[in-house]
Amino acid sequence: MVALRKPQTNSYEERGDNGDSFPFTATDWVIVFNTRINKKDTSSKTQLKGTQAAPSATPNVDHFYDGAKADVRKAWADVVSRLLAVGLKFRVQKWDEIRLAIFVYCPEKVLAREVYRSRVVDWLNDSGISELEPPALPNAESAEVSTPATTPAERLRLVHELLTAPTYEGGAGLTSDADVVGNTDAVGGKYIEAIYAPHDREFADKWVKSWAKRWLLSQQDIDAIRDYAGEKVAYYFAFLRFYLASLIAPALIGVLDYWWHGAFSPYYGVLTIVWSIIVISLWNRQAEWYATRWGTRNFSKIEKIRPEFRPTKIVIDPVTEERTPYYPYYKRWAVKCLITAPITIAITAVLTLVVLGIVSADVYFHKFYDGPGKDLMGFLPTILYGGCIPVFHSKYIKLAASLSDYENHPTDTQHAASFTQKLFTFNSLVAFIALFAESYLFIPLSNAIGSVLQQKGFISSMGFEVTPETLQARLIYLMITGQVLNAATELIVPLLTTKATTVMHGLHKSKAEKAKETEEERYVRRVRSEFERPGYDVDADYSEMVIQFGYIVLFSVAWPLAPLACLVNNFLELRADAFKICKANRRPVPQRADNIGPWLKNLTLFSWLSSLTAPSLSILYYKWVPDEQATNQVQQRLPTLLVALILSEHAYLLLHYLVSEATKALPSRGWERRKRAEFELKKRYLLRAGID
Amino acid sequence: MVALRKPQTNSYEERGDNGDSFPFTATDWVIVFNTRINKKDTSSKTQLKGTQAAPSATPNVDHFYDGAKADVRKAWADVVSRLLAVGLKFRVQKWDEIRLAIFVYCPEKVLAREVYRSRVVDWLNDSGISELEPPALPNAESAEVSTPATTPAERLRLVHELLTAPTYEGGAGLTSDADVVGNTDAVGGKYIEAIYAPHDREFADKWVKSWAKRWLLSQQDIDAIRDYAGEKVAYYFAFLRFYLASLIAPALIGVLDYWWHGAFSPYYGVLTIVWSIIVISLWNRQAEWYATRWGTRNFSKIEKIRPEFRPTKIVIDPVTEERTPYYPYYKRWAVKCLITAPITIAITAVLTLVVLGIVSADVYFHKFYDGPGKDLMGFLPTILYGGCIPVFHSKYIKLAASLSDYENHPTDTQHAASFTQKLFTFNSLVAFIALFAESYLFIPLSNAIGSVLQQKGFISSMGFEVTPETLQARLIYLMITGQVLNAATELIVPLLTTKATTVMHGLHKSKAEKAKETEEERYVRRVRSEFERPGYDVDADYSEMVIQFGYIVLFSVAWPLAPLACLVNNFLELRADAFKICKANRRPVPQRADNIGPWLKNLTLFSWLSSLTAPSLSILYYKWVPDEQATNQVQQRLPTLLVALILSEHAYLLLHYLVSEATKALPSRGWERRKRAEFELKKRYLLRAGID
Repeated sequence: MVALRKPQTNSYEERGDNGDSFPFTATDWVIVFNTRINKKDTSSKTQLKGTQAAPSATPNVDHFYDGAKADVRKAWADVVSRLLAVGLKFRVQKWDEIRLAIFVYCPEKVLAREVYRSRVVDWLNDSGISELEPPALPNAESAEVSTPATTPAERLRLVHELLTAPTYEGGAGLTSDADVVGNTDAVGGKYIEAIYAPHDREFADKWVKSWAKRWLLSQQDIDAIRDYAGEKVAYYFAFLRFYLASLIAPALIGVLDYWWHGAFSPYYGVLTIVWSIIVISLWNRQAEWYATRWGTRNFSKIEKIRPEFRPTKIVIDPVTEERTPYYPYYKRWAVKCLITAPITIAITAVLTLVVLGIVSADVYFHKFYDGPGKDLMGFLPTILYGGCIPVFHSKYIKLAASLSDYENHPTDTQHAASFTQKLFTFNSLVAFIALFAESYLFIPLSNAIGSVLQQKGFISSMGFEVTPETLQARLIYLMITGQVLNAATELIVPLLTTKATTVMHGLHKSKAEKAKETEEERYVRRVRSEFERPGYDVDADYSEMVIQFGYIVLFSVAWPLAPLACLVNNFLELRADAFKICKANRRPVPQRADNIGPWLKNLTLFSWLSSLTAPSLSILYYKWVPDEQATNQVQQRLPTLLVALILSEHAYLLLHYLVSEATKALPSRGWERRKRAEFELKKRYLLRAGID
Repeated sequence: MVALRKPQTNSYEERGDNGDSFPFTATDWVIVFNTRINKKDTSSKTQLKGTQAAPSATPNVDHFYDGAKADVRKAWADVVSRLLAVGLKFRVQKWDEIRLAIFVYCPEKVLAREVYRSRVVDWLNDSGISELEPPALPNAESAEVSTPATTPAERLRLVHELLTAPTYEGGAGLTSDADVVGNTDAVGGKYIEAIYAPHDREFADKWVKSWAKRWLLSQQDIDAIRDYAGEKVAYYFAFLRFYLASLIAPALIGVLDYWWHGAFSPYYGVLTIVWSIIVISLWNRQAEWYATRWGTRNFSKIEKIRPEFRPTKIVIDPVTEERTPYYPYYKRWAVKCLITAPITIAITAVLTLVVLGIVSADVYFHKFYDGPGKDLMGFLPTILYGGCIPVFHSKYIKLAASLSDYENHPTDTQHAASFTQKLFTFNSLVAFIALFAESYLFIPLSNAIGSVLQQKGFISSMGFEVTPETLQARLIYLMITGQVLNAATELIVPLLTTKATTVMHGLHKSKAEKAKETEEERYVRRVRSEFERPGYDVDADYSEMVIQFGYIVLFSVAWPLAPLACLVNNFLELRADAFKICKANRRPVPQRADNIGPWLKNLTLFSWLSSLTAPSLSILYYKWVPDEQATNQVQQRLPTLLVALILSEHAYLLLHYLVSEATKALPSRGWERRKRAEFELKKRYLLRAGID
């Protein structure tokens, strides 16, 4: 987070080298500039000059269009001058009446400087394998040869940093967040509709095909993702691969134990809890190994400041004597404690009540109600649910985004963590409230509710009751529909909408037309069509997996076949996600990561909670006697339950401690590799010092 | 732990430079060689040649005495040859019929090599403040000038490492542990009675005097301890200073709340728990700062292997291609799980039963018994206790030592942690069992026990009962006697015994005799008298403080004036400990440390437990009605208790998490200092690289 460059002062008018052409299939990033001109106004005459054909070099960019308002002109001039100031080259193409596409290319010389700078910072922060010598100095003559970007992802990441880092950190400070323009030195805002990197079609095709053919993914496959899409996405696939393999154990145990003891078996419950502890601990080791392998250890220390960060002032840092953006940490804490926390708690409370109400209605109509239109009324809650939750969800996303913005996190990682945690709270409530309500409310009080309803005259007889089987059925329903819905919203919907908008914009060509295209035209058409795709959101995929993990550890004691179902699902998920990234989404913005971020905490939390749910479900509902009154049975089991809960939670914490100590004692692969490098270093150094 | 030197081959016969004299007041370490010759055999004739006057240079050491057995000769030859092999100088003095004292001095050239080696390893491990350049090479001509030891403690530590490190790590491999000779390459064993450094009288006198005069200790005082006695001891004083200051808050709250609400106030209980969380969290920050200041960060990675370590084999490390001692970690785990753990559990169970029995007898005789000799019988349990526990304790210490040895830890820090944890388990059981028994057994069941005793005819009337006041009285008794006993055993007993043995050995001189002494003679007499002192055991002092912390957080809700009492005690303790180190104990062996080691875990454990004891005591005994039956009162409060326990423990864990997150967010002083150094480094490097 330390600024290593001063902003450069030369404006774009002074520079003559923008006319230099570049092979535009080498485009690094595409910036879509949306003039936000009202479409109705543009219907009569063309507002933008320029060509819809291949993008051309544009030496005179600030007279590129006329008829626009002053603020559009200003925004355009800002963007263009910032691009030139950091030494990037670009070509502009008109896409439609309101959009201009800027194809940005980073000259090798500029990139070499960025790569070198990044290597030095990495070296200083001991990010990967220790090196005695800092990276070799770039030669002024042959900079591009001495420090090449090692992977496409690194190249894209560094250029993206150059585009988005604030000017005081040496970047161009472009942003597509309208709120921060004016508050920070960022420019663009609402006029920048998108910044995305074009896909490498050849690589993507090869990748998807190769995965489809094989059962297992190798380490090389994960590395290939890292090279293509950066460490953050690669971590997701690495986690998914690890988690998929680890599911084999509970899947086997689940099948055997279900066959042997049936649902709610305490043996299965205990084994699942133990499994969850071990899996999380082992994953941590694996994650550390990846961080060493990919050189992202300690990376959070050197992460760039996001352009949306609003420092209260720029202070002269007493430590570094540099101009440093400053935002007092106590303010962030105050916002978190006094604004975010109460709002989140209030909303989750309302959400809980709403879901609880709908679930109650569902239980009522399915289990107690025997009046007219029983079959029809049974659908009412589902319709209510389908109508309410998505609306609620989309409103909540906006709120969460503005709350996270308001917290004003300096880095992308922190901002993303704050935002995704808020969404995840919502998602997991929706996923688990019904199950919690049924487990600890509806089943134990089944008779009581029934007799109250009968007394009040709502129902005439006590035909049905809520039983442990109801819980099992709901779990199965939630898991299966959840997985199907996810597949649909993630994969099929984007594919269809992309297709539709592509056709709408006249980008769809027949085979004959395609054959006639030049390579340039084909490239531009593809890049244009990728703009219609949604951005890839790796956190949505994590959320899905972590909630699945939650189903397994928290409630699968009710249905021990769940791990097997998840094993099958994840085998397909791994491939579907690869397909999604390459074919249905824009290319992900490469980001560094040294673990799976906040998701690790969520996994641990679910694992901890499982030490309460799994034993309680086993104690309450194992060997349930259907003919006996629920209330009686639960009352008999209550004392055992209370004692078991206290014991099992403490046993969990003890086991957790022991396992983490044991895994710490084992030297990890990452540690060994670092040790080897360190030793080489020592030996060389001591040899040089002439000591033995 | 990586060996950086090969053992040197030159034996002492080949070396002629031992004759070089050194000013023996410059002695670094004294090794006391005990021939273990039976005293009876020596009564008639002198077994050892040599002089009892000032130690002389001994060019022909292996003919220094005759009449000794072959194994004594062998041991002597081993010790002397090892000393010569590593390049140390020494002079030998005969102390009595069976003891030879070896005054060891490390020539500046040898020391400079050690200092330099240590600096390079520190630099490579990023132990303190980052430095761009490794330490400057020692110049062959003027080695002592280029890399001096910065503190007396560092000098002593490095020479001690040279004396005790195994030969494959380049040391002399001397040990006073008889069991390991033969199993390892260590020599000496039972023949080495002690290895200790002489005190610096001038410094010690100044230090003790300056502390006695002042109320508060400054940072400089702590640094002075570090310079004199090493980081491990300095950490103890730093902790004590910090803890002393932090006690002001609970002392104030305690006095006010005791005045306002009386004993067992829930307000005081909650505040104590919160205090304990904050104190531990803040101490961690402070400890990190000291580690940066003293350059001991990451030091555990580079700690030397202890000579007592028994590798199963010396393997060629696949990583470093060096000969490395190897002991499979799973063996240590197996020993821990299958031997140490069951034995410790069994012994603590027996101890618990014994203490419980004695406490029961105590309660019986004091509260229920009304037969003949009531006053006399009341002393029986105390006598039993005083007779049993010390015997039990001394046996346990031996067992704990051999168990820890058997676990075969490679470094001193790990070995000490394992050993002290075992002792601490014992000490805290002795400290707390009685209180736990009274809180949760005797008071609630007071009536029941009374009526059973009455029915069985043991007592005639139910005059007394065990009440919350009994608990308070016992807490006060335990804390006060504990502190007085500690002062006695730590300070007065060693002073008296040292005095006695000094007189016995004829070392005590009258003032007139002292005046006649040369400086040399005085020095030798003092060094000789320091041999009679016990070694300083910093862990015993830690144990005392941590148990005191335990009394405060676990039980002081019964007596809110406890923090005030501890504040007063610790004010004196801080000074007494300084006096003890300088005047009553041998000089501590300087050791590095980067925190207070296992004690931090014990503090955290007590803090955690307090979330159960403090609320339960408050709920059970706040506003106790003396006239109502205890069993009834407790039964009424039981449901509240159960719910409160579950809630308070979870509230504790949540608060703990929040506080540790909040303190993490605050940049620490240590971090800032490292950041500054790192930035300087970066700037220099980037300037050199020609980038901005």
